[in-house]
Amino acid sequence: MNPLTEIDTLLEARWIIPVEPAKTVLNNHAIAIDNGIIKDILPISEAHSQFQARQTIILNDHALIPGLINLHTHAAMSLMRGLADDLPLMDWLNNHIWPTEAQHVNTTFVTDGTLLACAEMIKGGITCFNDMYFFPEASAEATLKAGMRAAIGMIVIDFPTVYASDPDDYLAKGLALRDQYHPHPLLTFCFAPHAPYTVSDKAFTSILTYAEQIDAPIHIHIHEIEDEINRSIETNGIRPIERLHQLGLLGPNLIAVHMVHLTDYEIKLIHQQGCSVAHCPSSNLKLASGLAPIASLLNQGVNIGIGTDSAASNNRLDMFEEMRLTALLAKAVSGQANTLPAHQALEMATLNGAKALGLGETTGSLTIGKAADITAIDFSDLNLSPCYDPISHLVYAAGREQVSHVWVNGRILLQDKKLTTLDTFELINRAAYWHERIDVAK
Amino acid sequence: MNPLTEIDTLLEARWIIPVEPAKTVLNNHAIAIDNGIIKDILPISEAHSQFQARQTIILNDHALIPGLINLHTHAAMSLMRGLADDLPLMDWLNNHIWPTEAQHVNTTFVTDGTLLACAEMIKGGITCFNDMYFFPEASAEATLKAGMRAAIGMIVIDFPTVYASDPDDYLAKGLALRDQYHPHPLLTFCFAPHAPYTVSDKAFTSILTYAEQIDAPIHIHIHEIEDEINRSIETNGIRPIERLHQLGLLGPNLIAVHMVHLTDYEIKLIHQQGCSVAHCPSSNLKLASGLAPIASLLNQGVNIGIGTDSAASNNRLDMFEEMRLTALLAKAVSGQANTLPAHQALEMATLNGAKALGLGETTGSLTIGKAADITAIDFSDLNLSPCYDPISHLVYAAGREQVSHVWVNGRILLQDKKLTTLDTFELINRAAYWHERIDVAK
Repeated sequence: MNPLTEIDTLLEARWIIPVEPAKTVLNNHAIAIDNGIIKDILPISEAHSQFQARQTIILNDHALIPGLINLHTHAAMSLMRGLADDLPLMDWLNNHIWPTEAQHVNTTFVTDGTLLACAEMIKGGITCFNDMYFFPEASAEATLKAGMRAAIGMIVIDFPTVYASDPDDYLAKGLALRDQYHPHPLLTFCFAPHAPYTVSDKAFTSILTYAEQIDAPIHIHIHEIEDEINRSIETNGIRPIERLHQLGLLGPNLIAVHMVHLTDYEIKLIHQQGCSVAHCPSSNLKLASGLAPIASLLNQGVNIGIGTDSAASNNRLDMFEEMRLTALLAKAVSGQANTLPAHQALEMATLNGAKALGLGETTGSLTIGKAADITAIDFSDLNLSPCYDPISHLVYAAGREQVSHVWVNGRILLQDKKLTTLDTFELINRAAYWHERIDVAK
Repeated sequence: MNPLTEIDTLLEARWIIPVEPAKTVLNNHAIAIDNGIIKDILPISEAHSQFQARQTIILNDHALIPGLINLHTHAAMSLMRGLADDLPLMDWLNNHIWPTEAQHVNTTFVTDGTLLACAEMIKGGITCFNDMYFFPEASAEATLKAGMRAAIGMIVIDFPTVYASDPDDYLAKGLALRDQYHPHPLLTFCFAPHAPYTVSDKAFTSILTYAEQIDAPIHIHIHEIEDEINRSIETNGIRPIERLHQLGLLGPNLIAVHMVHLTDYEIKLIHQQGCSVAHCPSSNLKLASGLAPIASLLNQGVNIGIGTDSAASNNRLDMFEEMRLTALLAKAVSGQANTLPAHQALEMATLNGAKALGLGETTGSLTIGKAADITAIDFSDLNLSPCYDPISHLVYAAGREQVSHVWVNGRILLQDKKLTTLDTFELINRAAYWHERIDVAK
């Protein structure tokens, strides 16, 4: 008889849904975790004859899935949740969000807002997020305090803010931060030019040069609303995607956020160039941006992940909500109820997000050798009874309130629905502090 | 000094959002309840000098709203939750739902399914639902066991089922059930002809005669998918709404469910005739039925409530989800972010549903003299921090998991998130029993 292999943790679950291979549901299986890595996935009945775990967690009513990946957010904006609703994008940005940011945003704001967002995301089964905000050094620190994985945006925007004075200054600050951390087991960095209408050709060209040097993704809002496209045609004579194409920005490193308004040519181009899309359904609806042609993009073979956008335009950082909405909207928009079945929505919310971030070898599926980024969903709630198909329930019936445990890199961040790294009371107090400041200033 | 008035219950809350008048948020107010009726709504500071309550419940972090009204469901179908997903309506009905019903539905199925649905609805803040299903005697009993308010459907469908043999038989059974209960403090009855494509002119004419006699609402699926309309044109030479109009069915008693595909003429006609609409956004998306023209109906002044439809096509009986989706979809479909602001979505999910059911004087708002049908939402969760506007949070940020207390007619059905009338363990066991039977038969 072989000696038992010592490992840190053994998770025994009713179901394991690894996402890779697609549609797979493993009954009564276990995940062996050691040193933050998935060492094995095997039937529970075999696990005890192979592994000696320092800790065993038994999850008899649960499904284990890869941690959800939020492919687009501005985490710190959680402090502006519900500040201004029922407004179109440009009114909302120009008259509410940007003035509030100009007056209040600093490193403390970003720290407090990002911690609050991390707490919400962990409780909702999210293990990794792709962030874009000012003072990313504060976002990075908050992420590490929470224990999450993140792609931190090196933001670039043409106008000066309290954070930086011009595109070169933004870029220099972002790159210095990246150099300070790189390489890091939890943090990676994306270039984050805000949008075609706020970034000049010159800045895009600098970003491209750096992005090629360090092989980092470029994370940008694009084709969110019709007006953005019309203004680009007026100013540049071409649509924003074509402009980025001419500048050489389209490629496997590009994470194109929103992509609501697309021609057939643009859908083909995006696929040919290997770009990824970050679909943000709640935000697109709430700001009346429109209905993204997700089925057409999928039919073309484009890699699409899902994002919540910020809590100021959503107002939940809830990937269960976005997953469900992604599946439902794609059916209505395509007119085909078999469009985007449940397992595909789950794949978009996990593996596709990881691929977009260049993290496809690290996270996004429960695969031997990948990081133990894992979310447990408790199916014992009567709202999930009966259960004919756990993948269907994950997408169409479950909510983030059923998330019971979350691990990132093998570290437990949520245990029986309790946060292990963050103090709820303190987060709410800090939110109340900012609420008062912002409300008085309004 | 006046003597104190004795009452059953005093609820003290951080916020009361009565829905009537619209947009109102009362800070630190109390609701006085006696004998199931709202006796008063007044500042907490004044309540103790006016009322002597046998029970006082202090809800310092909570908003009280009128109980949510689910204007369209088939409660017992909770036992088929997730049985068949990602399928178009007719394939789903003909090849999955109807065969399963033919084989399994009986009074026990309806009892167990309705109790499970009631438990889910109570936990989600729903106090009243408009039901359509076979064996409504079992639905009625289950509703009363749960303690909820319901409009029970007197279902009529042309083809025979285990429940009834022909339209006259359906009608006779429904009316006998109604006579058994009428009048009742919690139960009312609606005629429930399934749909234009399953009910003959003759049966519609009988229903109309009876509906005029007893002044009861008529609850019907209509204009759900394009194919329904095309088939009506082939068979009857006219669209279904026009057919109902010619039969005299359109009027203030009509609750038209779905209404996805409408011409401008039909929108005007529906308004002129005073019909109500039951909007079911998740179901319309999931079955790829389409995007209902809600903004156009609202602009015309049509009374629109919101329904979950059944757990087989949603798959959540969650009015928070439907409220949010109603507000978000209307913005994207109309292209205007200020369409259907939060307070209007809340009104649709409460008062408008009550009006459609002829219960506008009984429930749907927190108003002195109405029944104490009340839902409390706990805002202490970090997902609702900060809170600039509680109505915005109710619609865009809160989830049913934040519902802490529910009262119907002054009786508490949910206390600190625990069901008081139903046994969760037993409900889940019964669901498991049906799961096994249905799965074996598939």
